[in-house]
Amino acid sequence: MTDSFMAQEVAEIPAAAARFLAGSQAAVADAAAALRTVDPGLVVTVARGSSDHAATYLKYAVELLAGVPVASVGPSIASIYRRPLRLGGAACIGISQSGRSPDIVEMMRAAGAGGALSIAITNFADAPMGEASAHCLPLLAGTEKSVAATKTFVTSVLAGLALLAEWQDDAPLRAAVAGLPDAFAKALALDWEPLAARLSRAQSLYVLGRGPGFAIASECALKFKETSGLHAEGYSAAEVLHGPAAIVQARFPVFALGVDDAALPQLVATAERLAAQGADVFLTGAAAKGAVTLPSVGGLHPLVAPLVLIVGFYAFVEGLARRRGFDPDTPPHLRKVTETV
Amino acid sequence: MTDSFMAQEVAEIPAAAARFLAGSQAAVADAAAALRTVDPGLVVTVARGSSDHAATYLKYAVELLAGVPVASVGPSIASIYRRPLRLGGAACIGISQSGRSPDIVEMMRAAGAGGALSIAITNFADAPMGEASAHCLPLLAGTEKSVAATKTFVTSVLAGLALLAEWQDDAPLRAAVAGLPDAFAKALALDWEPLAARLSRAQSLYVLGRGPGFAIASECALKFKETSGLHAEGYSAAEVLHGPAAIVQARFPVFALGVDDAALPQLVATAERLAAQGADVFLTGAAAKGAVTLPSVGGLHPLVAPLVLIVGFYAFVEGLARRRGFDPDTPPHLRKVTETV
Repeated sequence: MTDSFMAQEVAEIPAAAARFLAGSQAAVADAAAALRTVDPGLVVTVARGSSDHAATYLKYAVELLAGVPVASVGPSIASIYRRPLRLGGAACIGISQSGRSPDIVEMMRAAGAGGALSIAITNFADAPMGEASAHCLPLLAGTEKSVAATKTFVTSVLAGLALLAEWQDDAPLRAAVAGLPDAFAKALALDWEPLAARLSRAQSLYVLGRGPGFAIASECALKFKETSGLHAEGYSAAEVLHGPAAIVQARFPVFALGVDDAALPQLVATAERLAAQGADVFLTGAAAKGAVTLPSVGGLHPLVAPLVLIVGFYAFVEGLARRRGFDPDTPPHLRKVTETV
Repeated sequence: MTDSFMAQEVAEIPAAAARFLAGSQAAVADAAAALRTVDPGLVVTVARGSSDHAATYLKYAVELLAGVPVASVGPSIASIYRRPLRLGGAACIGISQSGRSPDIVEMMRAAGAGGALSIAITNFADAPMGEASAHCLPLLAGTEKSVAATKTFVTSVLAGLALLAEWQDDAPLRAAVAGLPDAFAKALALDWEPLAARLSRAQSLYVLGRGPGFAIASECALKFKETSGLHAEGYSAAEVLHGPAAIVQARFPVFALGVDDAALPQLVATAERLAAQGADVFLTGAAAKGAVTLPSVGGLHPLVAPLVLIVGFYAFVEGLARRRGFDPDTPPHLRKVTETV
């Protein structure tokens, strides 16, 4: 059997990450220098779909490392409501694989006009989004044929983290980013068979994380929907106890993304509470009473660890999709480029 | 049969709204004056659960009316990660029914320490959150016994809109806010029987909105989970086409919250596309090919219309819960006050 495009593209992630790090150094350095000059009091992000999960990841990373608040701005503010935002002294980071969704391009242009330093993260340096922005970090990930974005999601977050490390001149994060191609290769070898067995016949599940891990939980949930027909929903491990736990009945599957950071004890406590009310809980990064621990790559910087998890997850969900009878390359009702207005 | 607490509290919404408008005028005026003095370049919001949906509503309202970007800050930034944010020149609006979740209180204190003008919106003026903030808008909604927040959600958004109208000295919004008690009373009389019949045996659904309507869609989804055991998920009508549409198969229920604003044509187009792929689509505010139109209250300001919809929805979902065999007052596994750390 020939591998799916999705499987091929997931396997390319370590090489794509190495290519970005080697090929985009100058663009990253230029944008980082501009950020140091502007010293923004606010970062706004503009993105949709998987790219918006990448933006959420970067929100936590920027807030935790730089202490600068990050606002996600709906592209519709510019494209539908036509309301200019006051963005003097801000930076605007836009993320789009194709770089040509009209609402994203319009919002980048509006952000620049509103006084923001605009930085585009996109796979294609010559896309309209790059032209509408002051800086562009091209992902150099190569063509992505699968509708489900994988290597471009990972390189988008990587680009943002590389930019953050240079902007803040943070040696530990810079070293962690440089080590990502190797960590991604290790993640591709993880085996989460107990989770696959449980989900082979499921309908719904929750995916939990916290901080940047929440962004990854949201991305996992979207991929469960796109590739495997599962109604998965991502929640912060704190939020899930504020209401959503009501539908967690006996045998409801829960996938909790633990990494070795300050939020881990709270995630473990949530996992144990949901297991105690009957859920089938699967957890990475720690042991929890009543839950199955899944293997993960250890010894990582807390701001890159969730990104390494998603690489293992992509390989996992591609296999799950086939096991559930779906073709991971052709999700029902979707196209690769969604041009929202 | 005695009415549930939830039914009683939903019925109290028009009176609670009128009580807030009469009793909190001075507090609103004081906070609005402070906002005009600070002239913030950024608003950050701090909230969880239903209150975070209220914050999302206010994000769109502030961005659309004042043009000031709004960032949602996870309370965990202060309580777990202990990272101070640079918030000089910002305003921080915190929303919590009880006003005593430790992470929210801590974040309000940290925001003030970081230079922000802090404004608490809470049901109890003497709650720790009010004491940790420079200003407090007490909701005066009375005790809420039902675990599912209803009248405090509505009055929280009302408080934020009243504050925005005074801050911006915006006569149309001020008039729209003053008319809300009457509009809420009309919303309580809406009949959405076709949707109730369809959902009486469903498992999953999507709730769609855009702009402030997206916040209301998220709140509807949470209440479907809490009261009726339904795996409902809220999406922006733009986002749903970026992947989540993959699980919308034949007869998948979709509830689209249309109001008369600039985003309505796009919402109708999304409703028609999902109906064309087989979904059972129910829509307010407009007609769409293949969809069932539900009644709503017309002639409203676009920044209050989604809030009026949620009042009709609360009455609807209380009945749906009972029809599905749930007691709306006692959702499984939940408590009224969730004290997250």
